Amino acid sequence: VKAVLVAVGSELLRPGRRESHSEHLTSFLEEIGLEVRCRRIVSDCAGEIVGALVDARRSPQVILVTGGIGPTRDDRTRLALAKALGRPLRLDPASEKAVRRWCRGHRFPYTAAQKRQAFLPAGARGLPNTIGSAPGIWFADPQGAVAVLPGVAAEMRAMLHGLAPRLRRLVGRQSLAGSTLHTAGRGESELDSRITPLSRDYPRVEVTTLASPGEVTIQLRARGRGARGQVARYRGQIARRLGADLVSEHGETLEEVVCQLLRRHRLRLATAESCTAGMVSARITSVPGSSRIYLGGAVCYNDRAKSRILSVPRQILFQDGAVSRRAALAMARGAAALTGAEVAVAVTGIAGPGGGTPEKPVGTIHWAVLSPFALLTRSGCLSGDREKIRLHATAVALDLVRRILLSKPRDRRERHC
Amino acid sequence: VKAVLVAVGSELLRPGRRESHSEHLTSFLEEIGLEVRCRRIVSDCAGEIVGALVDARRSPQVILVTGGIGPTRDDRTRLALAKALGRPLRLDPASEKAVRRWCRGHRFPYTAAQKRQAFLPAGARGLPNTIGSAPGIWFADPQGAVAVLPGVAAEMRAMLHGLAPRLRRLVGRQSLAGSTLHTAGRGESELDSRITPLSRDYPRVEVTTLASPGEVTIQLRARGRGARGQVARYRGQIARRLGADLVSEHGETLEEVVCQLLRRHRLRLATAESCTAGMVSARITSVPGSSRIYLGGAVCYNDRAKSRILSVPRQILFQDGAVSRRAALAMARGAAALTGAEVAVAVTGIAGPGGGTPEKPVGTIHWAVLSPFALLTRSGCLSGDREKIRLHATAVALDLVRRILLSKPRDRRERHC
Repeated sequence: VKAVLVAVGSELLRPGRRESHSEHLTSFLEEIGLEVRCRRIVSDCAGEIVGALVDARRSPQVILVTGGIGPTRDDRTRLALAKALGRPLRLDPASEKAVRRWCRGHRFPYTAAQKRQAFLPAGARGLPNTIGSAPGIWFADPQGAVAVLPGVAAEMRAMLHGLAPRLRRLVGRQSLAGSTLHTAGRGESELDSRITPLSRDYPRVEVTTLASPGEVTIQLRARGRGARGQVARYRGQIARRLGADLVSEHGETLEEVVCQLLRRHRLRLATAESCTAGMVSARITSVPGSSRIYLGGAVCYNDRAKSRILSVPRQILFQDGAVSRRAALAMARGAAALTGAEVAVAVTGIAGPGGGTPEKPVGTIHWAVLSPFALLTRSGCLSGDREKIRLHATAVALDLVRRILLSKPRDRRERHC
Repeated sequence: VKAVLVAVGSELLRPGRRESHSEHLTSFLEEIGLEVRCRRIVSDCAGEIVGALVDARRSPQVILVTGGIGPTRDDRTRLALAKALGRPLRLDPASEKAVRRWCRGHRFPYTAAQKRQAFLPAGARGLPNTIGSAPGIWFADPQGAVAVLPGVAAEMRAMLHGLAPRLRRLVGRQSLAGSTLHTAGRGESELDSRITPLSRDYPRVEVTTLASPGEVTIQLRARGRGARGQVARYRGQIARRLGADLVSEHGETLEEVVCQLLRRHRLRLATAESCTAGMVSARITSVPGSSRIYLGGAVCYNDRAKSRILSVPRQILFQDGAVSRRAALAMARGAAALTGAEVAVAVTGIAGPGGGTPEKPVGTIHWAVLSPFALLTRSGCLSGDREKIRLHATAVALDLVRRILLSKPRDRRERHC
């Protein structure tokens, strides 16, 4: 069974506003086994709401509507639902009782505006609202079901408990299985071509890839009997195929995996950043408890800071320049010496839009990672604007730390074989 | 003219995913004078995309589609658009040339998958993509216009520049006047109560406030004749009322304003961060050209790093603790000495979820700012989860730098009066 989310409210379409219900509702519906196929945000205009509902009811599914059922003039969802269903609005005695009770409890006069909240399309039922005044609406027919909840987050969330059993009855046993895999260091199309040959054996598993600078997330999903096993086997095959390019099989982020590896090896990290200027350290420390594995580091945005804080030899800055392999290596060494960390990562580069030269164009980045058992440098030219280059350089820095830490146990295993 | 946003991508409908383009696109369209009336997020399924496009084209408007135009199997927007328009897909020579050039530049083979990106519905034009491989699509007829952009944020944003003139021509002179004001250091409800009394004089100007940790954005909007003047006058009144709490009147971000002030005073900044661990430096350096005013600094995530890198006296760490006013001040002094900067900002605190004590609960933060003409410290307890506390602490740090720099010219003026 598919689900459609419709959020009603002109304010949700304003610049700078974020529609925040859908995230919560999507998780709620997925847990029940309902897959959200479409999400719509419409204004308070009745015509727009009717249009969205009529369109959603073209294929049989569950429609979850939020907002527009309060007592004010711009609350038009009740009327729109009645129109979309082709049914008249009728006063629901149970809902009226609930609204009256709410008004009494809050010492509000029971006005005509309040009373409007007790009207439902013929054949619909009220959903009790334990917090606010507006009862929700439940309507089901062979074309599917429609649930209408208030737009106020707390009321909406509280009413989901009452809604869950009704939805579960609709869905039956058709559960959904899913898995999220994170990768780093490879492009989306390369990963796609490595995974596609495997997909033939799992026709029921849907694969989605999602790229962000330097990282690609792979999502697997299947439904019906045996879905869980299919997804698990497919995930295993992908993991074997991708090897070290796979960051995690169970949704852990790159920074979480780096923290886990550092903890496992009892190593501590330091950072030395130029163009990323704190983005690597900010990502590492977004993981709770990272103070156990991260000591600190330096942000060196000009040459003098590089030599002053990280003791990068002036000769390197003069001969090779601040954006060079040798400077990156010296920065990593400096960060390790400064903090006493066993592992250090350094990034230096040109994020643009200014500062590029023919020899070192915008996007030129050098990375260096130092660890007790290996030393790694990488150089590259990243594309995109300033923000993308910085995000990409940050992801590569974290990924190189991950790869250097991964290489240790593997070496050991090979030695034992 | 109304606009509809359609975001394509099954991954956008997954739990835990946030659809992040619409915010940026809504602002972009509003500036041009297009009001977003509906937003839709649909899966990669071609039928769903076709359905959304056909439905949106029922009333004449501008449709902005993002996502689903890359080279992979699940990119189906091209095909869906052709179906929705009832026009065949044709190879566009200009787009083909662009894709070929991109492949050559990135040393990617020009495969059939890459070539697919150069197909457009008959009558459509390609929109150049300066960053990625996939050209966008522009189609206009009496029923309205459709623009298709890549789902990758950086590519999408870069392409908006090319799209703006086309949309402006459609909109004509029916413009929408708007203004964005940034504030920092005051809560949303406090600002609301300071602004509301002014609104009586400007009944046509709509006011929206939007809060993020430590900052509140105020948006003014009006349409029709005289709208621009109304908005400008209202903006001026708000600016006078808010004084130093106003960061900018014309949409400049807090970090941009800090950079401007530093440049104006010919001062350079250093940072010393503990709990924010690079978030202050990352925000400052997100501004292009910030290398002229930002030197660097230190991220000190443990006590030893604080004393080693920033020379915070051990006595302070022992007596007052690393999370204290005196430690913050010593960190700022250390950062200034280390980098040679004239202005230094330090943040130290407990972001949680662990590490809190009865005397210093999670959220306890101390800030210190040093400048040639003033010294400022602040202490507070921020609420929220780890991420919110870190974001809030970062905003306060930048705002304190802004306030200390603002205080200088004002003192002078007062002296002259």
